Amino acid sequence: MFISFEGIDGSGKSTQARMLADRLRQAGHDVVLTREPGGAPGAEEIRRLLVEGDPGRWSPETEILLFTAARRDHLERTIRPALAAGQVVISDRFADSTRVYQGATRGDLRGTVDALHSLMIGMEPDVTIVMDMDPAHALSRGLARDTTEDRFEAMGLGFQQKLAAGFAALSQDAPDRCIPVSAEGSQDAVAARIWDAVDSHLRQKV
Amino acid sequence: MFISFEGIDGSGKSTQARMLADRLRQAGHDVVLTREPGGAPGAEEIRRLLVEGDPGRWSPETEILLFTAARRDHLERTIRPALAAGQVVISDRFADSTRVYQGATRGDLRGTVDALHSLMIGMEPDVTIVMDMDPAHALSRGLARDTTEDRFEAMGLGFQQKLAAGFAALSQDAPDRCIPVSAEGSQDAVAARIWDAVDSHLRQKV
Repeated sequence: MFISFEGIDGSGKSTQARMLADRLRQAGHDVVLTREPGGAPGAEEIRRLLVEGDPGRWSPETEILLFTAARRDHLERTIRPALAAGQVVISDRFADSTRVYQGATRGDLRGTVDALHSLMIGMEPDVTIVMDMDPAHALSRGLARDTTEDRFEAMGLGFQQKLAAGFAALSQDAPDRCIPVSAEGSQDAVAARIWDAVDSHLRQKV
Repeated sequence: MFISFEGIDGSGKSTQARMLADRLRQAGHDVVLTREPGGAPGAEEIRRLLVEGDPGRWSPETEILLFTAARRDHLERTIRPALAAGQVVISDRFADSTRVYQGATRGDLRGTVDALHSLMIGMEPDVTIVMDMDPAHALSRGLARDTTEDRFEAMGLGFQQKLAAGFAALSQDAPDRCIPVSAEGSQDAVAARIWDAVDSHLRQKV
């Protein structure tokens, strides 16, 4: 079972991924909690090229090659071995992030993004939780975090709104695996919604 | 005009690329001398991931994505702007190195290498000088160099022989742009052969 969390920055993906991992562990599952870009030692080296330094030094095309290289490493070293061992994998972001971010900046590259994905990655999560939050609210939370990895937050509200529209469109394009969940309210309230959504999605699949 | 140098390690590519650049400059051309992996600031950052540290940490698939990312950056930041400005570009290695090295290690990936090239790079040099040297001789020269970037030399004579066969096959597969040149003998003798080969290739094209 491979579950990904997607959504704009500040929507609580990391927190909720961790809370879902805890709950699944309490239910007796062996869970690997991971993230993108990164999630394996080599992929984390590539992540540093993407999130540190001047982001403008990479063209969109070079950037998607680097994201795909990191994803391939993550898939080979972390995700596939865990799935083969019967573990549940929860990833904070996966390929949908690349699709939506590139869609918001260089929509003409969507065909290239898709071709690269099918050539070098070729798999999707079983379930994708798409965190749905008002971009203005998410932005205020995102900016409050102490981080040097601030390239997306720095792009402002207009960009966050484009991303939110992209994630909403994703939920419609891939309804078989994407579950939109409201990310507003307390952490426990959101966690309860996610648990219900995952639980009922899995019951439908069985 | 875009000229690449290919061939096994120790065959004198870097020296001969520099000598050809000097001679073209003396003939009045504006020349950019560059190399792969690298050749632009971002591409050099990616190069460090490829040539430093344990090379075994990348799978062949991740490695070709990183090479392609570096090549895309090199193409955008160095090669295309130079060609657009009317300069001659001479590169110590280009895409053929990826084809031949992957062919010698994971021949089943050739289709992936080609698909990635046509998706993200989509161009070839006008002329490729393929340095032809006895692998045992080249290996003895390569190992004598003071370098920390020794991953290919470290693979031994059997691997160098496979690479030499791959470069020979390349010359036959792309005879319109590849010129095999004997790399044995003095630097000046090899440089004279290369000058004659480039000169007569260009006359044929005009």
